[in-house]
Amino acid sequence: MKRVLVTGATGFIGARALAPLRERGFDVHAVSRSRPEGAAAESWHEADLLDDSARAELVRELRPTHLLHLAWYAEHGKFWTSLENVRWVAATVRLAAEFAAAGGRRAVFAGTCAEYEWGHGTCSEATTPLDPATLYGKAKDATRRVVEAAADETGISTAWGRVFFLYGPREHPGRLVSSVARALVSGERAATSDGHQLRDFMHVDDVAAAFAALLASEVEGAVNVASGEPVALRTVIERIAAAAGRPDLLDLGALPPRPGDPPELVGAVARLHDEVGFRPAYTLDDGLAETVEWWRQRPGLA
Amino acid sequence: MKRVLVTGATGFIGARALAPLRERGFDVHAVSRSRPEGAAAESWHEADLLDDSARAELVRELRPTHLLHLAWYAEHGKFWTSLENVRWVAATVRLAAEFAAAGGRRAVFAGTCAEYEWGHGTCSEATTPLDPATLYGKAKDATRRVVEAAADETGISTAWGRVFFLYGPREHPGRLVSSVARALVSGERAATSDGHQLRDFMHVDDVAAAFAALLASEVEGAVNVASGEPVALRTVIERIAAAAGRPDLLDLGALPPRPGDPPELVGAVARLHDEVGFRPAYTLDDGLAETVEWWRQRPGLA
Repeated sequence: MKRVLVTGATGFIGARALAPLRERGFDVHAVSRSRPEGAAAESWHEADLLDDSARAELVRELRPTHLLHLAWYAEHGKFWTSLENVRWVAATVRLAAEFAAAGGRRAVFAGTCAEYEWGHGTCSEATTPLDPATLYGKAKDATRRVVEAAADETGISTAWGRVFFLYGPREHPGRLVSSVARALVSGERAATSDGHQLRDFMHVDDVAAAFAALLASEVEGAVNVASGEPVALRTVIERIAAAAGRPDLLDLGALPPRPGDPPELVGAVARLHDEVGFRPAYTLDDGLAETVEWWRQRPGLA
Repeated sequence: MKRVLVTGATGFIGARALAPLRERGFDVHAVSRSRPEGAAAESWHEADLLDDSARAELVRELRPTHLLHLAWYAEHGKFWTSLENVRWVAATVRLAAEFAAAGGRRAVFAGTCAEYEWGHGTCSEATTPLDPATLYGKAKDATRRVVEAAADETGISTAWGRVFFLYGPREHPGRLVSSVARALVSGERAATSDGHQLRDFMHVDDVAAAFAALLASEVEGAVNVASGEPVALRTVIERIAAAAGRPDLLDLGALPPRPGDPPELVGAVARLHDEVGFRPAYTLDDGLAETVEWWRQRPGLA
């Protein structure tokens, strides 16, 4: 029996990862600080992963064979520079060692495109230099180094899924796709930068399913969780406007570009497609239309 | 007033670092799991640095302006591969953040020559690739990345002293200089490898004094704590034999070379000499003679 512990299980990705893991035959156990209403007590565990004894006890008692570690500090607008990143480095490297000590066999961790040195366009796991520009990226990169080195000693199998840009219903309203969709369906003006930057977008359901596929595979090392398709932010914004039927409310170029924003940030997907065997289900058009529709039902949400 | 917290204060380097720090005007506070006999309770604190609450409380209450973090797992023969390294990554990155939060201004950490990719001969902080071969080296390297990135956010000043090879009285009897010196003064045969490898040796008192100088300086980033002088291990062994008066007991080449042992591992010392302004006090001959004499007084020690 494959028993997986999913951390960050109430998060944007984590909440969508449970179903695809069950479909792949995993006995799925989730952990979060508090159990969501309706979640079964026998498969949903309450623990603060930053609490060393609580975390160690959970792993020791559950003895999962698999680990999908998605939890991290992710507060919008703060996570790039917050010292909470340091606490998550500490918790993550210890969790990896505790998982191995409890008999774990395979672990997958959420990494980020922010581990790459920006400015290379399409980022390849094997060749693009790792020189993160931010504390968040450096913390994830350093964590991966420790996790992989410890796995060399314990013999567990690990992979590291580098997430690019994701979107979908329930995303934080401050993030690009959410904020534009929400404004337009509420009849408000949406001011954005000129949006010439090329990015790699993937629907959050596909991101979650990709993590499930990666965990079920035997692929090791870093794997981009990405679409591989460069799309200009202005294209994304214009498609949201088309789906919302309000292109008149767009104000592209009203905001200055963010300093340090790289012109292109896209993931090479050969590993995800050919080694993991995963392909996303959503087209960008379908995913954005679904997201706009979700906001249309909830325009008053904060 | 400069108040320094020294971790690993009962260790090989730490025990020698307290006096040079006092000489430089620091109010010196030490921490170890148990206070050594005779140490003053007001300046020697008992805490397990791997215990998150104990460590955080110590830093919060002491409010040191300076930190010299020498503590790490160092058990001879095990430290290269032990998962204890992972716990020290966690404790160290959190300590660095806690130190900054408590008003700390300048911190120096003990790194290692094992952070460098081996095979480059003389290792320079600015140009030699970092590609550690061991869990120990990878853990230290990753820790430095997190500590430096966090310092960019908190504004504290940090340096990272990369220790090469050290020796001196009270070193673990299993290590090269100690084991040869102890065998010879006890009239026992000393079997070694052929010893053609070039290494960089520094007396532990000089290493400790270099850390005190580094902490008192404003130099930031990685700094090799090294002599800069390549010396063949067989030369070190022969000088020990000469000092012990027992070259007849040497059996150079009786042991096979260690697999993966690099032929040359020496530190470039421009930063230590020219930026920190530190020069070692011991010559290798004097240091080895002192070490042999120390073992001569204690041939029965385990």
